[in-house]
Amino acid sequence: MKVIESIRNPQIQALRKLTRTRDRRESRRFLVEGPRMAEEALAAGLCETVLISRFAERSQAAADRAEAAGLEVIQVSEAVMESLSENRTPQGILCLCRMPEQEQMPEGPLILALDAVQNPGNVGTMIRTADAAGFTGVLLGSGCADLYSPKTLSATMGSVFHLPILSVPDLAQSLMFLAEKGAAVIATELGGEDFYHACPPSPSVLVIGNEGNGISEKVSRAATCHLALPMRGGAESLNASVAAGIMIYEMARREEQRFSSGTQTKEKEND
Amino acid sequence: MKVIESIRNPQIQALRKLTRTRDRRESRRFLVEGPRMAEEALAAGLCETVLISRFAERSQAAADRAEAAGLEVIQVSEAVMESLSENRTPQGILCLCRMPEQEQMPEGPLILALDAVQNPGNVGTMIRTADAAGFTGVLLGSGCADLYSPKTLSATMGSVFHLPILSVPDLAQSLMFLAEKGAAVIATELGGEDFYHACPPSPSVLVIGNEGNGISEKVSRAATCHLALPMRGGAESLNASVAAGIMIYEMARREEQRFSSGTQTKEKEND
Repeated sequence: MKVIESIRNPQIQALRKLTRTRDRRESRRFLVEGPRMAEEALAAGLCETVLISRFAERSQAAADRAEAAGLEVIQVSEAVMESLSENRTPQGILCLCRMPEQEQMPEGPLILALDAVQNPGNVGTMIRTADAAGFTGVLLGSGCADLYSPKTLSATMGSVFHLPILSVPDLAQSLMFLAEKGAAVIATELGGEDFYHACPPSPSVLVIGNEGNGISEKVSRAATCHLALPMRGGAESLNASVAAGIMIYEMARREEQRFSSGTQTKEKEND
Repeated sequence: MKVIESIRNPQIQALRKLTRTRDRRESRRFLVEGPRMAEEALAAGLCETVLISRFAERSQAAADRAEAAGLEVIQVSEAVMESLSENRTPQGILCLCRMPEQEQMPEGPLILALDAVQNPGNVGTMIRTADAAGFTGVLLGSGCADLYSPKTLSATMGSVFHLPILSVPDLAQSLMFLAEKGAAVIATELGGEDFYHACPPSPSVLVIGNEGNGISEKVSRAATCHLALPMRGGAESLNASVAAGIMIYEMARREEQRFSSGTQTKEKEND
């Protein structure tokens, strides 16, 4: 196994550049940290190189699997690990991954679209929730937190590797494209109709807006309906990730209901 | 208006003690910060003293209202404000509040109970979500983050003032008491029955456990059913506040459905 001890090693210096958004975009590479994310990256086939500390026992299984798959595994010093890690106490394993090729619009009955969701924790958490609910894809409009920043990746808890996520330059245009193909495009907006009473048919795209300013005007115009969660008590609003989670799971519940009641099959027969 | 410029002023020193959990508990007093929380504290009738910076224009309305209500309003220097604030940039207004007298068990159809939820942001966010959904009360078991710490208060976004929140020394005992009175006590646990298929009748208590360890054994034994959200995709779990939010809103949706379909009235007639 290759061993690197110096933080000035050119390969390490090249990896260190990936802590910057611009360098990640240009090289289409990113780093994930910790045994859990390493396992997910390996399972997704996106891992290229594994860096492991000498004493990272919890990470040995992932390193062994990487080696068996013919990937480059490098043992590095604590100093090297610290120079690459975003955590105060590095987790002993880092993977260099390539970004997935993802140029086709996500398909399937349930898609999540984020319009300038700024907080990396929110972007990651919403992707994680969409994955848990069985959504089939995510669209990231411009102005969203960088998907491949350590904070976003960590909030996805591995879901970044589970479903297609497409960054689009013009979210309104992508939504219009999906609407033309028959999808309900649900803009979640203050003052919208009660989310529970209006029940758009599948396929549906749930659009979540910026934490402070909501959905942009252009994206709102591309929507086929405008819904909001009811506020029954004294609270004026919900936490952004919580609101998204409630709507994501409600859409999944309806989709399952439609599926099990056979409505979906009927709709298809009528086409 | 009284003016205090020195951080060594005895009244300011007494207030500064309230940044400690123990002193808050003993005095049954706490501080809230910012114009929004100040308005909520005033509306709830729990505010005793208002401290305002000279140039806090956004807070003037709250200060005027406090003065009109006969409360003590003190103009303080920036140094005094900074010595009491938890924020890097203080928001210009602080209120000394008394904790509400709350000794009766919360009543009503929907109650949230937290069992050793550790993260202040989670405790605050879950209270905010319960408020938004129209829940009628919250029980905090031992081991939960301090309700009156600045982080918890800020995550409630004012909901701390909207619904009864009772700290109980023995959550299992309180839950058994509610179960004896006819409430379904729903423990949310990995491996539980599908939350959407099992449909406990109202009144219900939703119990959320610790972020890492879930619900304690004793509390779990006090539950009348054990439910979990379905994981349909690749994610293993949900963010704690998101999972709580999904279940809180689903319970509120069912409650509304029962109410509008008249089932609840029928059940009562049968009693």
